[in-house]
Amino acid sequence: MKFLIIGGDAAGMSAASRAKRNEPDMDVTVLEMTQDVSYSACGMPYNIADPARAMEELVVRSAKIFREKQGIDLRTGHRATKIDRDTHTVEGATTTDGTSFSLPYDALLIATGASPAIPEIPGIDLPGVMALKSLEDGRRIKSFIGEKVQKAVIIGMGYIALEMCEALRERGLAVSLVKPRAEFLPWMNREMASIVQAEIEAKGAALYPGHKIEEIDSGNGSMIVRCSEGLNLEADMVLAAVGVRPNSELARDAGLELGPGGAVSVDGFCRTSDPKVYSAGDCADAYHVVTGEKTWIPLALRANRAGWAVADNVTGGKVELPGVVGTAVFKVFDLQVARSGLSIREAEKAGFDPAEVMIKARSRAHGHPGGSPFYVQMVGDKRSGRLLGAQLVGKEGAAHRVNAIAVALQQHMSVEAFSRCDLAYAPPFGPTWDPMLIAANQLLKAL
Amino acid sequence: MKFLIIGGDAAGMSAASRAKRNEPDMDVTVLEMTQDVSYSACGMPYNIADPARAMEELVVRSAKIFREKQGIDLRTGHRATKIDRDTHTVEGATTTDGTSFSLPYDALLIATGASPAIPEIPGIDLPGVMALKSLEDGRRIKSFIGEKVQKAVIIGMGYIALEMCEALRERGLAVSLVKPRAEFLPWMNREMASIVQAEIEAKGAALYPGHKIEEIDSGNGSMIVRCSEGLNLEADMVLAAVGVRPNSELARDAGLELGPGGAVSVDGFCRTSDPKVYSAGDCADAYHVVTGEKTWIPLALRANRAGWAVADNVTGGKVELPGVVGTAVFKVFDLQVARSGLSIREAEKAGFDPAEVMIKARSRAHGHPGGSPFYVQMVGDKRSGRLLGAQLVGKEGAAHRVNAIAVALQQHMSVEAFSRCDLAYAPPFGPTWDPMLIAANQLLKAL
Repeated sequence: MKFLIIGGDAAGMSAASRAKRNEPDMDVTVLEMTQDVSYSACGMPYNIADPARAMEELVVRSAKIFREKQGIDLRTGHRATKIDRDTHTVEGATTTDGTSFSLPYDALLIATGASPAIPEIPGIDLPGVMALKSLEDGRRIKSFIGEKVQKAVIIGMGYIALEMCEALRERGLAVSLVKPRAEFLPWMNREMASIVQAEIEAKGAALYPGHKIEEIDSGNGSMIVRCSEGLNLEADMVLAAVGVRPNSELARDAGLELGPGGAVSVDGFCRTSDPKVYSAGDCADAYHVVTGEKTWIPLALRANRAGWAVADNVTGGKVELPGVVGTAVFKVFDLQVARSGLSIREAEKAGFDPAEVMIKARSRAHGHPGGSPFYVQMVGDKRSGRLLGAQLVGKEGAAHRVNAIAVALQQHMSVEAFSRCDLAYAPPFGPTWDPMLIAANQLLKAL
Repeated sequence: MKFLIIGGDAAGMSAASRAKRNEPDMDVTVLEMTQDVSYSACGMPYNIADPARAMEELVVRSAKIFREKQGIDLRTGHRATKIDRDTHTVEGATTTDGTSFSLPYDALLIATGASPAIPEIPGIDLPGVMALKSLEDGRRIKSFIGEKVQKAVIIGMGYIALEMCEALRERGLAVSLVKPRAEFLPWMNREMASIVQAEIEAKGAALYPGHKIEEIDSGNGSMIVRCSEGLNLEADMVLAAVGVRPNSELARDAGLELGPGGAVSVDGFCRTSDPKVYSAGDCADAYHVVTGEKTWIPLALRANRAGWAVADNVTGGKVELPGVVGTAVFKVFDLQVARSGLSIREAEKAGFDPAEVMIKARSRAHGHPGGSPFYVQMVGDKRSGRLLGAQLVGKEGAAHRVNAIAVALQQHMSVEAFSRCDLAYAPPFGPTWDPMLIAANQLLKAL
């Protein structure tokens, strides 16, 4: 049995390791384009923030361990270029000397991940313009900052843009963020988005939503990012962080079905439209448990979990994953911002009849020192009474509280049932009625 | 319609306020023995820790507001002594001048709370021996510490004992804790209990489990707590914190059924065995959602929620509460200790065939600075695959993560289903696989 894996990041290496654990004699080969495997990509902004730390601290397991301890045939510097589904082979070439290869498979996993979307702007190929996805990107950005870079412009205002904003501010850079859409964090409740926006501005970064980026000019030593409405931003470094797209070209060219966002379409067993070919990680789609529809939300936990599921299924198991509920969390300076499920707009689009509330509570009990404001937005369906989603913002407790929402959504729980959950209380950690319960109690009135 | 409430704490005042909100014209009377209503009892240890703060900061709403703004006939200093279920009256006397009263009711709520259990030890009535339940107790302890108290002995090692240990250490006192039972936090996984124990000892408090307390001797200015095996502890102050018992005497004397722990037995609608009489708060029992059996776990959230449910039911509603899952959290110096559901011992007693795992993870992602060890214990049922409970210990993230367990238990979720939940991940807040998922994945192997 030959199990071939294209891509040696979270999904690919999770699948390879687990397949060897399940069946130590299985022939498991991984083709990885870069020289890096198994690193914490999400940790890169935090690593870039600290010049004293080596990028290599993010490597979880070395190629050597995968090869020698786990017996995985891990081939770094190997780029796959074609999947031949008739002959069950994958063709490609090495990135070092271009030697071509052709490898047979009994089961194939496409775990090619995602790449930063690069906006088509004149000047986007200037040497000081970068994007962050691979560890190599991280190294490049980090070493670049080392050289007299004082002003950074970030194109985009999503998770990675905001995390990099924090990292660059920590490195002492002046940071401006610019994007075409006028709304900041458009999926968020407007009042809560403005709280996040105020936090970023209070930490000295400038936000320019609603400006189209027209070109990047190379000036005298630095660049000018020219935007609509006469906005010109000086930059020693430009970071393009406008989102990512699934690396699904190989799958598409092989005639496999694609799903939302152009991601490889998979069923609950992570099978593509070809039963011998699986896909997992940032290149693959998933079911959204709340809507029941396909969605594409590239996130690390799903990649690891889907990698495991593929390995289990390739080694004789029958693991069906329920899908995702759209849980995400990020840190924005001193704030924790978390969400799970649908925003009110997403709920409307999905055909629900949603109602939304937003409440302000405290992170600690009445009279307990050190507390701070805590905000919860919650969406429910008027027809069914179901909980559809929530957003949480606060200096403490948002990142971990959101897991309760995620579990409730996974269970298709009603707002009423959620409002009666026996959540934890102690004065240092929240009010007697947890802020999520306060929101649920309010939402019940609106349903 | 006359709605009479005995007890003006969390359950009683929640019920009174909500009844007036539901039906502004309703005649709502509250009989409260003390002069204090609506304060954060759980906040008292933290208030005692800080000499600069007044005890009154814990008062959430004043008697004046209840009376004048909300129109509640709140009678402080009124002790109820008898419930006459035939004539639908409550008799009693004022605590100030002993004037007797007799009040009729159409619906009655017994919300008499709980009292500290006082161990029968010679010397327990010495002036330097105290217990903490009412705000008046809090005031007495706080003012007593003001006078040259240097050594405190706490009898007991439960939540309140440990919170008071921290408070008294913060006030600079030498603190020893002693109790008869040999096991520290007996409901806890042994390894995790030893981590909590080590934290307390590292913060300079001495723990003496396994010592029977034989007597408290008044010495020259200070006291001696004499214990078994020759242990003698010097004390300027002794705090009895061996747990609480429900104040169910009134209900018992009125012939109402009692449940576990001697608490007033109530159904899902918070009705006692007499349909005109409700009970809520620390004096009443509840269904345990995991076992389906009655339990008595006095906690603030349940008290507030049950108070609301009674008010809704008295004003024409039909609110049935699902019960509790045994969620609790407390802070022990720098540690957060949380639990929800059953310990393995409780699971065995309840007739399950349980398996238990304990895992050690990190509070932040691999390579992220500032992380600390994070421990999760998890119990599941081998026969059904159900999740039965979990315990969490860590410096960050335990208090709020436990809510995800609470929701899963409320939903009778299987360990497998829980292990597939889409929980949050970002490097500052945990590893890719949340520690709860790591535990669930391990537990699956043991089921």
